[in-house]
Amino acid sequence: MSIKEAALQAHRARNGKLEVTGTVPVVSKQDLAIAYTPGVAEPCKEIAKDKSKAYEYTIKGSSVAILTNGTAVLGLGDIGPEAGLPVIEGKALLLKEFGGVNAFPICIDSTDPDEFVRTVEVIAPGFGGIHLEDIKAPECFYIEDKLKEKLNIPVYHDDQHGTAVAVLAGLFNALKLVGKKMEEVHILINGAGASGIATAKLLLAAGVKHMVLCDMNGALVEGDTSLNEPQQQIAKLTNRDKETGSLAEVLKGKDIFIGLSVADVMTKEMVQAMSTESIIFALANPIPEILPEEAHKGGARIVATGRSDFHNQINNLLAFPGIFRGAFDAKATDITMEMKLAAARSIAALVTDEELDDTYIVPDAIDKRVSAAVSKAVKIVAEQSGVVRK
Amino acid sequence: MSIKEAALQAHRARNGKLEVTGTVPVVSKQDLAIAYTPGVAEPCKEIAKDKSKAYEYTIKGSSVAILTNGTAVLGLGDIGPEAGLPVIEGKALLLKEFGGVNAFPICIDSTDPDEFVRTVEVIAPGFGGIHLEDIKAPECFYIEDKLKEKLNIPVYHDDQHGTAVAVLAGLFNALKLVGKKMEEVHILINGAGASGIATAKLLLAAGVKHMVLCDMNGALVEGDTSLNEPQQQIAKLTNRDKETGSLAEVLKGKDIFIGLSVADVMTKEMVQAMSTESIIFALANPIPEILPEEAHKGGARIVATGRSDFHNQINNLLAFPGIFRGAFDAKATDITMEMKLAAARSIAALVTDEELDDTYIVPDAIDKRVSAAVSKAVKIVAEQSGVVRK
Repeated sequence: MSIKEAALQAHRARNGKLEVTGTVPVVSKQDLAIAYTPGVAEPCKEIAKDKSKAYEYTIKGSSVAILTNGTAVLGLGDIGPEAGLPVIEGKALLLKEFGGVNAFPICIDSTDPDEFVRTVEVIAPGFGGIHLEDIKAPECFYIEDKLKEKLNIPVYHDDQHGTAVAVLAGLFNALKLVGKKMEEVHILINGAGASGIATAKLLLAAGVKHMVLCDMNGALVEGDTSLNEPQQQIAKLTNRDKETGSLAEVLKGKDIFIGLSVADVMTKEMVQAMSTESIIFALANPIPEILPEEAHKGGARIVATGRSDFHNQINNLLAFPGIFRGAFDAKATDITMEMKLAAARSIAALVTDEELDDTYIVPDAIDKRVSAAVSKAVKIVAEQSGVVRK
Repeated sequence: MSIKEAALQAHRARNGKLEVTGTVPVVSKQDLAIAYTPGVAEPCKEIAKDKSKAYEYTIKGSSVAILTNGTAVLGLGDIGPEAGLPVIEGKALLLKEFGGVNAFPICIDSTDPDEFVRTVEVIAPGFGGIHLEDIKAPECFYIEDKLKEKLNIPVYHDDQHGTAVAVLAGLFNALKLVGKKMEEVHILINGAGASGIATAKLLLAAGVKHMVLCDMNGALVEGDTSLNEPQQQIAKLTNRDKETGSLAEVLKGKDIFIGLSVADVMTKEMVQAMSTESIIFALANPIPEILPEEAHKGGARIVATGRSDFHNQINNLLAFPGIFRGAFDAKATDITMEMKLAAARSIAALVTDEELDDTYIVPDAIDKRVSAAVSKAVKIVAEQSGVVRK
């Protein structure tokens, strides 16, 4: 059976991939008196006196709403909230399996960013965290920013930060292999959407000094008013030499290519024009910007993709379950840049010096040591930086 | 340990009473390729082509959102959305345990009925049903009506309909015992909130001809503009003799008292003034309008309460899990009066003629035969009346 048939069958077998079950018994009348009336009035009264007790007495203490409006689902584009549901169900499944978090998928039937924000604000009291998914740029930035401002619980857009953290983790180890420094390398990010911009921001925070973003029109340069607001902002913070031109032109001499764009935009010849020992993260899914074989032919030393059937899979799964687990463990009220940096470092550190190799720069995404390490690192940083509930 | 202590401990032990778990494995890379990328794109594409496929490929096919804004929680009043969460978590637990439905509790942080409606409308695409809970009257009527109008999935306010169905079930059997007819008995419902009004409507549909509702100001009479809109409407449909006066006055000569109000508003003397073989459903929780012992002293033949420590517990749990299970099994798009009548009949029918007794008019709420019978009856009626998806 093909993956396609197996996937349809698995999704159909039990109406999706999740269930909601009880953690307390309801077999006897006594059980009912404890879990339901009259006993249930007691936690209600405790929470009425002190809202923060909801973390203790309800699922809020371990629950995340995973929300999409289906405007940018996988590479399929704006296919609507219902069609985005299998992806957020999948994320919920993974958050439970790898992070022990109770996540529930919620479709948002609105493409109005303000209505998205208000809806999440209205349903937020029952959740301990907000995981945004598959929302198109630039709206995704506005929605996340507003929600971070309004809510006192962690808000996290995985297409941005999951990708950024996984990329940075791979980059730490790739640089170790080629013996280059974060502060010195020249990086080109192709793609100026959610993941491209978020990755650029995290790389800046990690110390990158020389970085240019490109989109299909070439390099993003400060002052270009045809760019959207978040693109204009990131153009200001990157491309300090005001490079202009197409991807192929700007890529010349660069050390690192990070593709967060579309299939087949790179050629062997473009890789040849990069510096020696070049690093290629071709993360477009399911078809990368350039296939690893071609990239190596062009002289790339290290090649990573988003796919599990090649070496060096850069996958958000490395990041998000551990980040949420760590945030819950710390009672964090936010997910900060420092927490994301710590997550990336902890992922990279799981590859020992003995294991580190051009074909093994990140651990396997289904290795459960990953979320354990990430959550520990994230928790420590959250506590140290004080973004936690009292 | 007291119920109070046991309840707090049970709610605290694991952050509430629910968890969200996967129904498909995610242990191997192959599992991940099926449940997540790249396989997950297949159900997404199927649903993008035909939205109704969401019922097949996602949790929508078995999921209910249980929503409260915490404005009328148990007998505790308006204690806010967080404090209402333990109750809706409890309902979710019971929906799973007794109805096999995956229900998730969602707090609504708004007391504006239009905002409540719009929020539910925005998050509705991922759910197969809407269960409203603990919303104060009269807003609850508006919210339910609007949602029924806007959504093509079952919408059900349990404080209204769960109570109404359980009451009617008990009434069927109580009338059998006393040998009186639904069309002939004189009924007084005390309480003109969500449950009082919904019960009156269901009793009208069941054939009741003589019925008066009272609230703390006495009988509801047509034309009284001090009543809220839903009260004015029900006053028109009941109290055909335009009775006026206090509860004690109006109760004189009545066959049946249904209390959906507050503790201790009835006395032995008031029961004495009712007709012979009177039936008392004193359903205020946790303290009934009159204790069974007192009611019997006043001459009542059959007494029911909402409590599990007395005979004849009239409990919503008799109704809601089976109603939702039946609605899902029928692919129902609505929960209609006919479905509620069928639910009540099926509950009553579970008490055999041999079992039927003044102290046993309804089955035990934790008897799993109840939800099985209710779901079957509800499914048949939904299918017959055609309120189902094609």
